[in-house]
Amino acid sequence: MALIVQKFGGTSVANTERIKNVASRVAKYRAKGDQIVVVVSAMSGVTDNLINLAKDIMPLPNEREMDMLLATGEQTTIALTAIALHALNLKAVSLTGAQAGILTDGVHTKAKIQNITPKMIHELLDDGHVVIVAGFQGQTPDGQITTLGRGGSDLTAIALAAALKADLCQIYTDVDGVYTADPRIVPEARKLDVISYDEMLELASLGAKVMQSRSVEFAKKFGVVFEVRSSLNDNPGTIVKEETKSMEDVVIRGVSLDKNQAKVTLLGVPDRPGMAARIFKALADAAINVDMIVQNVSHGAKDPATDLSFTVDKADLLKARKVIDGLKAEVGYADVISNEKMGKLSIVGVGMRSHSGVAARMFETLAKEGVNISMISTSEIKISVVIDLAKGPDAMKAVHAAFLKS
Amino acid sequence: MALIVQKFGGTSVANTERIKNVASRVAKYRAKGDQIVVVVSAMSGVTDNLINLAKDIMPLPNEREMDMLLATGEQTTIALTAIALHALNLKAVSLTGAQAGILTDGVHTKAKIQNITPKMIHELLDDGHVVIVAGFQGQTPDGQITTLGRGGSDLTAIALAAALKADLCQIYTDVDGVYTADPRIVPEARKLDVISYDEMLELASLGAKVMQSRSVEFAKKFGVVFEVRSSLNDNPGTIVKEETKSMEDVVIRGVSLDKNQAKVTLLGVPDRPGMAARIFKALADAAINVDMIVQNVSHGAKDPATDLSFTVDKADLLKARKVIDGLKAEVGYADVISNEKMGKLSIVGVGMRSHSGVAARMFETLAKEGVNISMISTSEIKISVVIDLAKGPDAMKAVHAAFLKS
Repeated sequence: MALIVQKFGGTSVANTERIKNVASRVAKYRAKGDQIVVVVSAMSGVTDNLINLAKDIMPLPNEREMDMLLATGEQTTIALTAIALHALNLKAVSLTGAQAGILTDGVHTKAKIQNITPKMIHELLDDGHVVIVAGFQGQTPDGQITTLGRGGSDLTAIALAAALKADLCQIYTDVDGVYTADPRIVPEARKLDVISYDEMLELASLGAKVMQSRSVEFAKKFGVVFEVRSSLNDNPGTIVKEETKSMEDVVIRGVSLDKNQAKVTLLGVPDRPGMAARIFKALADAAINVDMIVQNVSHGAKDPATDLSFTVDKADLLKARKVIDGLKAEVGYADVISNEKMGKLSIVGVGMRSHSGVAARMFETLAKEGVNISMISTSEIKISVVIDLAKGPDAMKAVHAAFLKS
Repeated sequence: MALIVQKFGGTSVANTERIKNVASRVAKYRAKGDQIVVVVSAMSGVTDNLINLAKDIMPLPNEREMDMLLATGEQTTIALTAIALHALNLKAVSLTGAQAGILTDGVHTKAKIQNITPKMIHELLDDGHVVIVAGFQGQTPDGQITTLGRGGSDLTAIALAAALKADLCQIYTDVDGVYTADPRIVPEARKLDVISYDEMLELASLGAKVMQSRSVEFAKKFGVVFEVRSSLNDNPGTIVKEETKSMEDVVIRGVSLDKNQAKVTLLGVPDRPGMAARIFKALADAAINVDMIVQNVSHGAKDPATDLSFTVDKADLLKARKVIDGLKAEVGYADVISNEKMGKLSIVGVGMRSHSGVAARMFETLAKEGVNISMISTSEIKISVVIDLAKGPDAMKAVHAAFLKS
């Protein structure tokens, strides 16, 4: 008998038909004798509707009240899910985040889980109930309702799995698992049976948006093994867990392509101390997230100057240009150019640590495809290159073929 | 500085525009320096939608889960109302029933309030906040969410007014107050400035559906003075309070007409002990609410028999006929007849206690109108007659003119 936490996102509970499907799936596991804790999100669309109602009244509504408002979304789903389990003659009880013992800090709309007291859940499980917990929400020690921010339901599931010492945590979603590449771009992409937390984190931050980084970080911190799998079929998914020795046998776990990159280059920046700091402080103050930064060596003996390039999310480009334009007098650069049609191609794998020549092989592959590399950034388990967006899909296919051909 | 509890029903908060109107009204009172506690219902339609979702999954959903589900309706409204008050630069905080300290028993979907601990509300009021409390809901001592059943938000408001020792409780609705008669039938009907709890209770149970009886009973028990008034204008409403000496100067407070009466008559019921008990036990077991019962004196020296008439709600007539048909052999009555086109006309007033001849005057008025009286029932402050429904409106106008001409 295993204790399993199963999390279902908004599209998996979008209407009563799908909620009944979720109940059928839970019933199959119950029939095997497993104890099940179900975590559900709000039915898709519900949260957005609530946000629109609030913004209809006031553009920037109070965050405590937004938590009060949004928490109703998951509360609706847990009740309906419990009823759907009753319809299958299963014992089931729904719990709000507060009732489930999920204590958070008081930072409304992005609260952090501080502690979980799973006493009531254990009692209900031992009494033969399926326990349905509202994802995304908790309460402060003094009884204020809080929400956990984007991806909060995944976090609820993983934190509950840790607190309950669950045997497995299943994250049900609308994809079959984590792939070696986006199958819409690379038809040969394969589903991975297993991936390490660190690889999953790199992929998450690189735009393979299966899960939010902080849920994976939380799972890593507490050693929660979880499975990403589809709520539409019974195929096994991808297990995400701590790195094992054998994982290093695989050089590259996956390839990702982020299509939303924009590159900004400042030409002829005077090579004086503090110039870079001034520029990136101004961008940070404008809440612009800068990804890669490349500075070339300076040229010119008298008044040496350098070229400085960085990438931002395409949506932030106009804002970034404004900030840079405002610094022209102070920094005294010669000119600024930008390109919003850039992509970031990355390969990720813990095997890089023990295999040499990975970067060379990637660059060689891209050269053969006639892809010009604009910027390069590396970490211990990742190599990213910024390239012309138009070349992105072909580059991805070529790199996938070079490293991941089965 | 007064402490006022203001309750707004579902139509008063039906959309964000109306919620803003509620906020404006509250702001006017705040500007006078009053402390305000606002109780709101779910936006109209929301509760029905939630019920439909549940019934879409299962015809008879579990009541604990229905409470979990329906409680989200009021929680949504309190958050939006708080935001609407913020938009007017007022300090405001929303509280669920549980957070407001409303403790109930564990009878889901029709819980009774057991206790209110208004500590947090007092603290928030003293700190200058408008406090918005979710109507219709509470929690059990062990943290289960409960709802109070039909008219529950009125009950929340009145119970809070009692617990907070409020100076006034205002029930905002879509009518201007309590009238001497339904103005749609009697154009000369006047709004009452004041009415006693007992008179209000008789009118509520007689079909003048301004408020549920149990909220009025609760107000009477705890001496909560409340005002029924319109959320659409600034007219003063009707104050409902304990009977005073001067109220007896008015003989009749109001006239009501219940159009949903059906009369059943059993002819030739053998006059043996236990026959009436048998009949009404069977009706009660079928959950049929019997209103008036009239038994005539028996006739016939040998095998004495009597005629027995009673009234039920029109909607229950078929069910009642089935029960009665099933008793034919056992009871041995001669025949049964029924008429579903009956109305119950009533006059109500504490002044009846000190004025004689009220019944005679009512019967005389009806006789002049050519209205045949089918059944009569009286209490200390009420006289009801069952008449042909078609004569109802004219009878009501005549009686109103006889007793309430201003």
